[in-house]
Amino acid sequence: MSTDPTTAAGVLARCDELDRHSSLPDALERVYLSPQHRSANELAAGWMEAAGLRTWVDAAGNLNGRLEGREPGLPALVLGSHLDTVTDAGSYDGMLGVVMAIAVAQRLTADGRASELPFALELVGFSDEEGTRFGKALLGSQAWSRTWDPDWWDLRDANGVSLHQAFLDFGLDPRRVGDAGRDPATLVGYLEAHIEQGPHLEAADASLGYVTTIAGARRFHLVVHGEARHAGGTPYERRKDALVGASEIVTAIERRARVSTCIATVGRLSVHPGGVNVIPGRVDLSLDLRAATDPERDEMWELMLAEAQELCAERGLRLEVAETHSAPAVPCAGWLTDAVVAGIATTGDTEPMGLWSRAGHDAMAVANVTEVGMLFLRCFDGISHHPGEQVREVDVAAGLDAFEAAVLEVARDYAERTERTERTERAEAG
Amino acid sequence: MSTDPTTAAGVLARCDELDRHSSLPDALERVYLSPQHRSANELAAGWMEAAGLRTWVDAAGNLNGRLEGREPGLPALVLGSHLDTVTDAGSYDGMLGVVMAIAVAQRLTADGRASELPFALELVGFSDEEGTRFGKALLGSQAWSRTWDPDWWDLRDANGVSLHQAFLDFGLDPRRVGDAGRDPATLVGYLEAHIEQGPHLEAADASLGYVTTIAGARRFHLVVHGEARHAGGTPYERRKDALVGASEIVTAIERRARVSTCIATVGRLSVHPGGVNVIPGRVDLSLDLRAATDPERDEMWELMLAEAQELCAERGLRLEVAETHSAPAVPCAGWLTDAVVAGIATTGDTEPMGLWSRAGHDAMAVANVTEVGMLFLRCFDGISHHPGEQVREVDVAAGLDAFEAAVLEVARDYAERTERTERTERAEAG
Repeated sequence: MSTDPTTAAGVLARCDELDRHSSLPDALERVYLSPQHRSANELAAGWMEAAGLRTWVDAAGNLNGRLEGREPGLPALVLGSHLDTVTDAGSYDGMLGVVMAIAVAQRLTADGRASELPFALELVGFSDEEGTRFGKALLGSQAWSRTWDPDWWDLRDANGVSLHQAFLDFGLDPRRVGDAGRDPATLVGYLEAHIEQGPHLEAADASLGYVTTIAGARRFHLVVHGEARHAGGTPYERRKDALVGASEIVTAIERRARVSTCIATVGRLSVHPGGVNVIPGRVDLSLDLRAATDPERDEMWELMLAEAQELCAERGLRLEVAETHSAPAVPCAGWLTDAVVAGIATTGDTEPMGLWSRAGHDAMAVANVTEVGMLFLRCFDGISHHPGEQVREVDVAAGLDAFEAAVLEVARDYAERTERTERTERAEAG
Repeated sequence: MSTDPTTAAGVLARCDELDRHSSLPDALERVYLSPQHRSANELAAGWMEAAGLRTWVDAAGNLNGRLEGREPGLPALVLGSHLDTVTDAGSYDGMLGVVMAIAVAQRLTADGRASELPFALELVGFSDEEGTRFGKALLGSQAWSRTWDPDWWDLRDANGVSLHQAFLDFGLDPRRVGDAGRDPATLVGYLEAHIEQGPHLEAADASLGYVTTIAGARRFHLVVHGEARHAGGTPYERRKDALVGASEIVTAIERRARVSTCIATVGRLSVHPGGVNVIPGRVDLSLDLRAATDPERDEMWELMLAEAQELCAERGLRLEVAETHSAPAVPCAGWLTDAVVAGIATTGDTEPMGLWSRAGHDAMAVANVTEVGMLFLRCFDGISHHPGEQVREVDVAAGLDAFEAAVLEVARDYAERTERTERTERAEAG
C-alpha cells in the first residue's frame, strides 16, 4: 500500500524512490545524460501523468509536464527544480522541489481547481543543475532558458566524452538543443521550492522562508608558480615554495571573508610535482565567491586579489588568475515573492524569514525568460551535498501547503492583473 | 674519437651517455628494475671492464666491479653511488659518483698502482636510491647492506606491479635477495662522491667539500579531518574547513623551521572531495623533516605536532598522524673523512668546507655494514632533482684528483693500521 503522494510522507517516500536511480552502489550520484538520468525522468514522468499532466522530455533532456488551465493554450506558471545530483549526494537537493511540485499539481487536479486556473500549470525537472558531469552548472535550465552556449559542446566528462557525444548517446540531437528554449510570451513565472542548504531557518526555529535574491557566484582558477627543488638541499632563503604561498592565500581569503558579508571557499587545490621530498613548484587552486549583491562580491574579489599578489611577490612567486564562472545575483520578483509570503502565512507564520540564497539554483537561469520566486524549507544543520542531508516531515507538510497556497495567490494576482490589462485595452479600444 | 674517460671531460661525456637510457622521450627517468636499469648497468659494466675490473650484477640488481689489490681476496674499499634517477632528473645526482669512481679505478690500474693497494678496490652502482618506482628509497643499497625488509615485496609501482613481480620480470630471484648482502669482514670502508644538491659550496666559492653527517629524515603523513559541506550554504561559524586548517599547518611548519637548524617541507597535499563548491572535508599532506642531528629533528617535530594539534582544535578539526619513514642521521667515519680532507688538500684547498648532507645517500644504508665517507662537489645554484642540474668541468677535475688522492690516503692509513695490528698480534703470540 503506497502512501498518498500529495502528503509530506508521500513526498519523502518518492524522494527515497529516486535515490535508487544512482550510478554508485552505496551512494547517490545521478548525472546529466546518464542511464540514471533517463530512468529518473521515466519515474517522475509516471508520477506527473498520474497527476493528470501531459509530459515530454525536451531537447536538452529536461522532463516537462503540463496541465491546461481554464482554457487550453494559456501561458504557464512553471513549478520545478532539478533531478540531477552531486557525487555522494543527499536525497533532497533539487528532487524535493520537483516532487513537491508534482504533489501540488495533483492536489489541484484532484478537486478540479486546476481547470479553473487563469494559466496553465507546468512542471519541470531540470536535467542538469549541479554540473557534476561536465563541470559546468545549470546546463539543463540554461537550455530551457535560451542561454545555451555552443562552446559547451566541447566540454568533456572525466572519461573524455564530449557533451556533444553524450547528447547523441542519450538519443538527443545536438542541432535541436534550441528547441528546449522557452518563449517568454508562453510563461507567467516560475516558482521553485528547495531546501535551504544553510542553517538560518533552523537557527530561527522556522519551517519555511522566502528568497530575496539568489547570490551570483564568481569562480576563479588561481595558479601559484614557484620553483620545484630538492627538499633537502635548498635552504629557506633560496626557496620559492608555491604551496607555502598558496597556503597563505587560502588563510587570507578566509580571514577577509569571515568579517564580511561574502562567502569565499577554496574547495580544490593541487600541488605539483607532488613529491614528498620536492619543494612544490606549482599549486592550482579554485576560489568560489558569493554575496547578496554583485558590488559586495566584486569589491571583495579586488581586495583578495591584491592581497594574493602581495603574498606572492614577497616570496618571489608568480600568480596567474583566470575567471572560470561569473553569474550576476538574481533578485526574485516582488509579486512572486509576495505570493510565496502569502503562501507561508497560510501555515501560520505571518512574518516569514527572508533570506538570500548563498547557493545557485535553476531559478537563476530561468530568470532569463520569466520572473522567479523561491520557497525555502528548513534542513538539518545546514547540511547539503552530502548523504546526511535531512528535511523534517512537518516542514515538508507546511511547505506543501504554502507552495499550493502560493500558486493560488499567483493565480489570484495574475487574474486580477490580466483583467485590469484587458479592461484598459477595452477602454482604449472603446 | 672519444674523450679520455679518466678526465673531467670524459666523466661528463659518460654522464651524458647514461642520459640516453631513459624511459621518457624528452626527459630523464631511470627506475629500479626497468629496461633502462638493465641497459645502464650494461653500459657502466663495460666501462668498469675497460678499467680492468671483474663485474657482476648482484641479487638486487646492483652493478658491482672488483679489482684485486696486492694479493687476491683482500677486504675491499668500495667506491660508489647510484645509477637510478627521479622523474625528470638531472644527469649527475648519483651517476657522477659512479662514473668518477670508474675513472679513479682506471687511473689506478693504468699505471699499476691498483695492484699495490693493501685492499681490493670495489665499485658499486646502486640500483635504487631514489625510490622513484616503489616509493621506498635505498632499495638497492639496503639489499647490499643487509637491511632488506621482506615486507617490501608487497610494495607496488604506479601500474600495480609488486616489487616481488618486478624482481621476477627482471630475471632476479626474490628468494635470493640476501645474496646481495655484504659481510662486513670483507669490507674496508665506503667512499662516495656526489654533487652537493645545495648552494653552500657555491656560496663559499669552493669546488669541493667533505660531509660530516648525513641527515636522517623523518617523514609523516598528516590527515586533517573536517566536514565536507556546501560552500554556499555554510556560514563560517559552522565550517570545519580541513583546507584552511591544513594551510595554517603548512605556514606554521615553515615559520618554525625557518628560524631553526631544521629543514621541513610539505611536498604533497591533496584535498577531498575537491569540488569547487564544496568545503574541503579532508586534507592529506606529507611532511619531510631533516636536521644534522636526530635530537634537533625530533624536538622540532614535537613542537610542530603540538602546534598542528592546537590549530586543528581551534577549528574543530581532527588531526591524524602516521610516521612513514625514519632514518637516523649517519655520521661519516673520522678516518675516512680525514682521507677525504687530505684528498681535497692535494687540489690546493687545505681548509675545505665541512657540510652536513641535507639529502639522503646510499652511504646511509652502507653504514650498516662498513664505515663511510663522502666527498661533495659544487653544483649550480643548488639545483638538483631537475634537468637544470649542473656541475662545472673544473670542479669535476678537482673532484677526480681529490677522490683518487683520498683512496691513496685510505690505503696509507689502512696499511699502517693493518701493520700495527699484525705487530701487536705477533707480539702477543710471541
